[in-house]
Amino acid sequence: MTAFSFNKLVIFGVGLIGGSLARALRVRGSSAREGARVIGVGRSASSVSRALELGVIDAAATLDDEAALAAALDGADIVLIAAPVAQTQALLERIAPHLGSETIVTDAGSTKSDVIAAARAALGARIGQFVPGHPIAGRESSGVDAALPDLYVGRNVVLCPLDENAPASVERIAAMWRATGAVIGEMPAAQHDRVFASVSHLPHVLSFALVDQILASPDAQLKFSFAAGGFRDFTRIAASSPEMWRDVCLANRTALLAELDGYTEVLARLRAAIDAGDGAALETVFARSRAAREAWQERGGKGAAAAIETAPGK
Amino acid sequence: MTAFSFNKLVIFGVGLIGGSLARALRVRGSSAREGARVIGVGRSASSVSRALELGVIDAAATLDDEAALAAALDGADIVLIAAPVAQTQALLERIAPHLGSETIVTDAGSTKSDVIAAARAALGARIGQFVPGHPIAGRESSGVDAALPDLYVGRNVVLCPLDENAPASVERIAAMWRATGAVIGEMPAAQHDRVFASVSHLPHVLSFALVDQILASPDAQLKFSFAAGGFRDFTRIAASSPEMWRDVCLANRTALLAELDGYTEVLARLRAAIDAGDGAALETVFARSRAAREAWQERGGKGAAAAIETAPGK
Repeated sequence: MTAFSFNKLVIFGVGLIGGSLARALRVRGSSAREGARVIGVGRSASSVSRALELGVIDAAATLDDEAALAAALDGADIVLIAAPVAQTQALLERIAPHLGSETIVTDAGSTKSDVIAAARAALGARIGQFVPGHPIAGRESSGVDAALPDLYVGRNVVLCPLDENAPASVERIAAMWRATGAVIGEMPAAQHDRVFASVSHLPHVLSFALVDQILASPDAQLKFSFAAGGFRDFTRIAASSPEMWRDVCLANRTALLAELDGYTEVLARLRAAIDAGDGAALETVFARSRAAREAWQERGGKGAAAAIETAPGK
Repeated sequence: MTAFSFNKLVIFGVGLIGGSLARALRVRGSSAREGARVIGVGRSASSVSRALELGVIDAAATLDDEAALAAALDGADIVLIAAPVAQTQALLERIAPHLGSETIVTDAGSTKSDVIAAARAALGARIGQFVPGHPIAGRESSGVDAALPDLYVGRNVVLCPLDENAPASVERIAAMWRATGAVIGEMPAAQHDRVFASVSHLPHVLSFALVDQILASPDAQLKFSFAAGGFRDFTRIAASSPEMWRDVCLANRTALLAELDGYTEVLARLRAAIDAGDGAALETVFARSRAAREAWQERGGKGAAAAIETAPGK
């Protein structure tokens, strides 16, 4: 962990992601020094009151009180947007009029190309103040009650720096995440979106699709009755938030469609092998998949930090 | 648990499934009475020696010793075939010459229509002595060292009785599995194969396919580096045995292709919704999938026994 201190951090959306950052900086960082304040901003009083109650934030402001919003942003070192990606542009448009020249804005969205486009639209010439980020740390639970000080320990945070970003700004955001125990990776936004379309967004779509297919079949209840461990693991992510995944699918549409089309081709090849009774072809695919899956598991299985060193874009 | 006693049980293939049955009957059943013997049959001496060493079986025979095989089968109450489904017909052809008129044969294969066809070919007019079965109890590990006396507690065992089976024969096999703590369901073989194509075989193919797609992509290592919890759960079953799943795909080809085609149609609809930016359609599918997945989890999540009562065919 590296030293990281701040005077004022403003978090838009104090849920699992934003709340865990606040808790981590309070508990773990040198940021626990006197005077460092975390301000939470929510859509309404009720959405931030629980975060205040839990002591996750020191003060709150709401979007419906322009003066409070201005006061919250005044003199902020860092602003984190930890709201659904579809809200990014609207939030940045509310932030822009009050954005100090020394303030760095970052985000926690699962997609990056669309967030960057939204930031360019909202911030214009001040786009250099926005450092795109993505902490890879979902949990099945959500909301500020699920926030944990050690959520980010050993997890990856991907930054997608812009040409307009000052290196010091990128390093400041990296230092904040490092203080939570996270490991920092960097890559271009387009590559980020391809990678996560493949290893996260596509599997969610595939998992939702399987449950939907079963539901639509005439013997759905019988099928669910006999579903066992394989089904349980495969469909765990189908219990994820429909709104969040709707937004992710639309926000990362281009990369996701490309991955989905590639996947459909793989399935078509496997279908042909099954249809032709080509056991050798099936076994070849299954065996190399198993070997790759096992190698991944052995390397740590949750975004192995060592491998990040080789990531292009660093 | 119901009373179940036997004089001689012969198990072809003493691995996880056959070994766990032997252990369960020894530990749990009234079968632990004096004189009840479990004989293991393997391809070679080495394949059964470990089972003998562990005390899972009382005696062993091998397929390469016809006299020992005849002696093993002589006077057997029950014969269980717990070998890969592709070996069923060859094993039944070896068993047939020594099959006593009072002996009941059953199996533990993941597919049933092909096993029944193999049994009809091998047993001819004596097909009534064969009661097709399927214990739903895989584990990540395999082999007799992984065998557990409580593997079947609370698990489903599906029987697919034939018109030729005497009701007493079916009840005898059901009683054996009940003695292990399992819950018995019955359904026709074609329905069994559809159900497991949907909730087990298809998800395995889909999981292998995702890993294979990533492997074939130019930035495979980067993708694996950032794969996290969703990927881990979704691809856990891609660590399964390539040989076993090759055999299952071929053995259950018809039902699996039908499910695969249905799934491809669901994916095509989701693709169209993503392409059209139709968030409402995506959210509808995701929300009803999540609700169904959560309801399944709440009902017990591993083949809820209560739901079996409603299974057609009982």
